[in-house]
Amino acid sequence: MPPPLDVPTPTVVIDAAVLERNIASMAQSARVRGLQLRPHAKTHKIPEIARLQLEAGAAGLTVATIGEAEVFADAGIGDVFIAYPLWVDGPAALRLLALAQRLRLAVGVDSVEGVRQLSRSLGSGAGRVAVRVEVDSGHHRSGVLPHQAVTVALAARSAGLRVTGLFTFPGHSYGPDLAAQAAVDEQEALAEAAADLRDAGFSSLEISGGSTPSARLGPAGVLTELRPGVYVFGDAQQRELGHCGPEDIALSVESTVVSRRTGTDGAPDRFVVDAGSKVLGSDRAAWATGHGRLLENPDARIVALSEHHATVELPAGQPLPALGSRLRVVPNHVCLTINLVDSVYVVRNGVVEGLWSVAARGRNS
Amino acid sequence: MPPPLDVPTPTVVIDAAVLERNIASMAQSARVRGLQLRPHAKTHKIPEIARLQLEAGAAGLTVATIGEAEVFADAGIGDVFIAYPLWVDGPAALRLLALAQRLRLAVGVDSVEGVRQLSRSLGSGAGRVAVRVEVDSGHHRSGVLPHQAVTVALAARSAGLRVTGLFTFPGHSYGPDLAAQAAVDEQEALAEAAADLRDAGFSSLEISGGSTPSARLGPAGVLTELRPGVYVFGDAQQRELGHCGPEDIALSVESTVVSRRTGTDGAPDRFVVDAGSKVLGSDRAAWATGHGRLLENPDARIVALSEHHATVELPAGQPLPALGSRLRVVPNHVCLTINLVDSVYVVRNGVVEGLWSVAARGRNS
Repeated sequence: MPPPLDVPTPTVVIDAAVLERNIASMAQSARVRGLQLRPHAKTHKIPEIARLQLEAGAAGLTVATIGEAEVFADAGIGDVFIAYPLWVDGPAALRLLALAQRLRLAVGVDSVEGVRQLSRSLGSGAGRVAVRVEVDSGHHRSGVLPHQAVTVALAARSAGLRVTGLFTFPGHSYGPDLAAQAAVDEQEALAEAAADLRDAGFSSLEISGGSTPSARLGPAGVLTELRPGVYVFGDAQQRELGHCGPEDIALSVESTVVSRRTGTDGAPDRFVVDAGSKVLGSDRAAWATGHGRLLENPDARIVALSEHHATVELPAGQPLPALGSRLRVVPNHVCLTINLVDSVYVVRNGVVEGLWSVAARGRNS
Repeated sequence: MPPPLDVPTPTVVIDAAVLERNIASMAQSARVRGLQLRPHAKTHKIPEIARLQLEAGAAGLTVATIGEAEVFADAGIGDVFIAYPLWVDGPAALRLLALAQRLRLAVGVDSVEGVRQLSRSLGSGAGRVAVRVEVDSGHHRSGVLPHQAVTVALAARSAGLRVTGLFTFPGHSYGPDLAAQAAVDEQEALAEAAADLRDAGFSSLEISGGSTPSARLGPAGVLTELRPGVYVFGDAQQRELGHCGPEDIALSVESTVVSRRTGTDGAPDRFVVDAGSKVLGSDRAAWATGHGRLLENPDARIVALSEHHATVELPAGQPLPALGSRLRVVPNHVCLTINLVDSVYVVRNGVVEGLWSVAARGRNS
């Protein structure tokens, strides 16, 4: 284990070597299958990481909000897809048009009303923003059912918008043994919608899918593009689902043991570190074994989480760490962790080599 | 219902009139029981709100981190208690000593080792930082058992630190029908520890307790001080626990309906608003009925939450809102929401009257 970093705690730390390996591995996986990679930048919100992804061959970025797109435009990124069914009012339309002057821009749509609103708000600029129709492949969040996609696409064409593709988020891949079926569902849903669109005269469509759990599964099939996000860092969820190993975890929260309890109330011995939900985030899926993991101790479990405390239990017989010890906590869902901090330390071989700004932190709109 | 605010969504909005009423009500509740009020500022992180609390009679603030204390010192607050068992290394000691020159400062301790580390790091300045010993009254997080408090206090005195009080956080008050018992536990734990300290010659002790659920319960008893936080805003948790009504909710997230699903997959009709976990936070207690509430519709439930989507179900027969509609979402745990945004809109009678900076956002260390 490297020596403790000389940083205050709790602090988000990124291991540059692991990050680079994760980026190269996913790029290679997409390349050999003939798929375009458009990583979801909501996971990292960091221009330096976006540039590494593009240098490794990514075609562009995916983002969730107009504000994220603006940050990456400022960083010189030239191709961005806002994978979200935006409801675009006048102020949002002005921002989209300003973006379209700086980069190649596409946005998501999932309703005839949303398409008409977008066209109305963009006015004479409607042709400058491409749209992709969102399809629900089983996650049941946003998106239309496959057979409804052509209706939205035709409405977009009638409203003067350019339809350049279809997309889905197979979010139902996030669970034990669910990823393979989600990848099949994704193929089927997109294939049905794509066939309808081609019958209606749409061509050169980008067919985009791929969560981190499903991104490496199966042949390209109908897909032309993947949009995984979490793969750059990994997290406790991906580890517990078997989509990454401990050696693939690039982000952790350096923390300090601040309190210990031994044999005081009939409960197992426990200790508290200073990384709570205000730095880890508090996502916890029903199947998760705890509120996060310790990087160096696979048997430890975070049994309770408050804003500034993570309470950790070790298996019976393992000694508690000393007060003041440094430990690295792996959050359950890394996308939330990044959105809680303004900067991250970058280390290589245990030595700090930089500080990156989380430039798109908090850009929710 | 007031007209939609002319702000982008999702955006955190504070109703000034409700906020002022909540501040006055808790101040009055403490005053009539002869208790000092030291509100926990981690809930709001906003200097303007801290000033309102002090103007209403608060004795000072509680914070969770040195960084929060620094922000409120910059804002001119003169009395701060860091209610956390800090592990103080050299850099942290310098920050504490700088703070102690600007305001009246106390910090939490819960171990002999922590006390010795604090004294060693503060060096000749040890007497300038007061300490309060944390007692576990049943939440089983940090804090020592009541009978152990005197040992920590004696170690602090031996190490040259000034012991000025005891504190506990009765966090086990956060559950249905648990608050009354937690208030009793708090009294008993603090009374036992206080008696031991007085027997050992400690005097003029501040005896501090009080979560928002328990803060209004019972007589002052052994307490001299309360530290509730959430009461300024209220949230869905407090509402579901019965500690505030819908009219007491001062903070909500203005959001837009971006997607609708009707009769498409056998599930109930649902819609999606653009407030997800990256603005609401994702705390969800086991007893919560959903991932948050809609301010104007007590029957709606947020049945799923992703980073930028909240999926809402209405009771059978209620019509879905139109795409583009504005709705106000009440987060489950408001302390996490505030920590996700850099500024909040302040409204009065539905009209925007200001924008406050969340000056201590992200100050985790």
